[in-house]
Amino acid sequence: MSGFNSLITVDEALKRLLEAVRNFKLDVEKVCLEESVDRVCGEDLKAPVDIPPFDRSAVDGYAVRYVDVISASPHNPVELKVVGVSEAGYDLKMLPKVSSGEAVEIYTGAPLPSGADSVVMAEFCKRDGDRVWVSRPVACMQNISLRGEDFKAGELVVARGVKLKPWHIGALASLGITNILVYRRPKVLIASTGLELKQLGSEDNQGKIYDSTRPMLKALLKSINCTVLDLGILPDEPAYIAEALSKHLDSADLAVITGGTSLGLRDVTPEALNMLEESKLVFHGVRMRPGKPTGAYVAKGKLIFMLSGFPVASFIAFKVFIEPTIHAMMGSKPDPQPTVRAYITRRLAKPTGVKAYVRVRIYRSQDGFYAEPLRLTGSGILSTLTRGNGILTLDEEVEGVDEGEEVEVLLTQAFE
Amino acid sequence: MSGFNSLITVDEALKRLLEAVRNFKLDVEKVCLEESVDRVCGEDLKAPVDIPPFDRSAVDGYAVRYVDVISASPHNPVELKVVGVSEAGYDLKMLPKVSSGEAVEIYTGAPLPSGADSVVMAEFCKRDGDRVWVSRPVACMQNISLRGEDFKAGELVVARGVKLKPWHIGALASLGITNILVYRRPKVLIASTGLELKQLGSEDNQGKIYDSTRPMLKALLKSINCTVLDLGILPDEPAYIAEALSKHLDSADLAVITGGTSLGLRDVTPEALNMLEESKLVFHGVRMRPGKPTGAYVAKGKLIFMLSGFPVASFIAFKVFIEPTIHAMMGSKPDPQPTVRAYITRRLAKPTGVKAYVRVRIYRSQDGFYAEPLRLTGSGILSTLTRGNGILTLDEEVEGVDEGEEVEVLLTQAFE
Repeated sequence: MSGFNSLITVDEALKRLLEAVRNFKLDVEKVCLEESVDRVCGEDLKAPVDIPPFDRSAVDGYAVRYVDVISASPHNPVELKVVGVSEAGYDLKMLPKVSSGEAVEIYTGAPLPSGADSVVMAEFCKRDGDRVWVSRPVACMQNISLRGEDFKAGELVVARGVKLKPWHIGALASLGITNILVYRRPKVLIASTGLELKQLGSEDNQGKIYDSTRPMLKALLKSINCTVLDLGILPDEPAYIAEALSKHLDSADLAVITGGTSLGLRDVTPEALNMLEESKLVFHGVRMRPGKPTGAYVAKGKLIFMLSGFPVASFIAFKVFIEPTIHAMMGSKPDPQPTVRAYITRRLAKPTGVKAYVRVRIYRSQDGFYAEPLRLTGSGILSTLTRGNGILTLDEEVEGVDEGEEVEVLLTQAFE
Repeated sequence: MSGFNSLITVDEALKRLLEAVRNFKLDVEKVCLEESVDRVCGEDLKAPVDIPPFDRSAVDGYAVRYVDVISASPHNPVELKVVGVSEAGYDLKMLPKVSSGEAVEIYTGAPLPSGADSVVMAEFCKRDGDRVWVSRPVACMQNISLRGEDFKAGELVVARGVKLKPWHIGALASLGITNILVYRRPKVLIASTGLELKQLGSEDNQGKIYDSTRPMLKALLKSINCTVLDLGILPDEPAYIAEALSKHLDSADLAVITGGTSLGLRDVTPEALNMLEESKLVFHGVRMRPGKPTGAYVAKGKLIFMLSGFPVASFIAFKVFIEPTIHAMMGSKPDPQPTVRAYITRRLAKPTGVKAYVRVRIYRSQDGFYAEPLRLTGSGILSTLTRGNGILTLDEEVEGVDEGEEVEVLLTQAFE
């Protein structure tokens, strides 16, 4: 097997991918607010009204004019006449007016009656019939949530490209927004190649192994809200692969092919992609481990990823390349990733010039967190992901890490 | 408004919640492997077979007996007779046997022919007809992935209680597992109370505000795979609330009521829950900010959360109490949370004895990350979540943080 002629760095590969999709933006669709969580916002959403929509009380108590109670004290309480009540949900037009020497009983969230400029908390008031004795002064506007304090009408609340989280739903609901534009789900064509593969659920055949990379990638794609068009396992025939892709590429936004990307005799994926109309190589071969044979083509205006058939290599390539590229097609970014700082339990060496993704098992000890590199490091060894719970990235220029050195690890799973 | 009589700490509240659901385990259901991602595994899944299922080549090259090529060098290559080929996917029974002085052409993933004990990479071999010249020695078992190296038959692959991630799907697919048991989706009854609330989409009424807490909580519950039974906005009538809950509690696994949990005159939720059959208070009132009026009851064997009607307080209570409690009902844990270490931009003071959750905006600067506490700190101020992108937790014993101090912040959103 000869080497790749033009290995590029991870950063250069990502740059080329983002450049390739720069002019490819997904279109938007209208969805019900409550269904929009985890989708990417497709418009700049501005507040149509002030929130709160009116000055309202932040406490239960009495709405007063602060000058009336300026001298109030427990020994010299100020007597005011209670002229009504303001409860949350009351119609603003029905509210009593507060004049000098008067107070209105008021509840949390209720609108401030006109004439009043502050609210005295109930615990500093003593009520008897239509009279209330206030035993403490209050500052002007004290205990009042001002109109527009949370959002001002016209203010940008959620920008296009933001991945909608539950609190965005809350904020937009508070503004009365019921439907919003979101980027439609990216449609991703997926196929495996490999003479050695059999479809999950198929009859046993001891010379073949179950295709595990494609089910994993489908789950990864669905986890970022993609719709998956699954072509199954394709035979290792360039013309067949090219035809299958050509037929379905129009109905997808991008494609992912696993397997056949290395340099062996049976690695026909690049040849197949070369046969596609308007086909152009973006890159093939990256200075990373695992994931070296990762590549991409653009054909018919669509990006086509070539991933290793090995599941761990594919997983890394998904996180490093596919996820940010798909987000870029919606002007968005992947969610932040959980990380932990941990001490490495044994020395790790690596060649410089290659970015390495080492699967580790994080565990808690009395004096902190430890990261144990998993010994099985073949790119096909899935158990490093199920036994481990973290991935340590070692940059190109790094020669290794010493035992006991503190490193930052991406957490893939909750741990003890 | 008088104070709560029995405020407890966040840890004590969580302890009581976990104790309350200790004997309440959700049942399991069988789902298709590809549909199981993000669900919680409901059984201990063991490998039914070895993976790899046979010794196979990790490279393209020639399968040989290592003793035959022990003296091989570029100047003195060893000549072997090629007696066949082993390709990935070939039937094991059809494989040629390697005897002394023989080699089999072999591809990555293909089964090792019997008689061979190592594979020489293709780049160290020169082929001519049925002859191959090997120019480098190889160690016994070199370039071979051993049977059972990834998973051994009978080995635990995914334990009950593990939240299934895409790589678990990959690992289980590699083992040929097509259906698995997962905990069924928790069914959560949800209702709001509050005279001031109107339903999203309802006619305008200037004295009322849109209910934003319930849509947010529904989105949060769905994000952890719950099924939501939404009772809408209930009137502030204890008997009415009790009847509505009583009627639907049997079809749910737990319930969440927002609003009416404080100590004002209109705060009737505790009274309503007290009216339920076999009702028992778990706690009411927590030393936290926001979220002080958080509480819980158990009635008819079901846990009922009482949350503040204020959206931010509800969000915090969801993350701190509801999410871990629901996971505990499946013997599971929430996913790890992304955090970032950042320098605080201004001094923060807080009373001791209270756990505070401060909304901050994280931004990147030349010399690191900074966390700017957001000035609007009312528990109803949703904009602190949409403008911010992180939450800083300050423990009970902490009096505050100084400007420039480094803190660890939970990230809620990707940032620039």
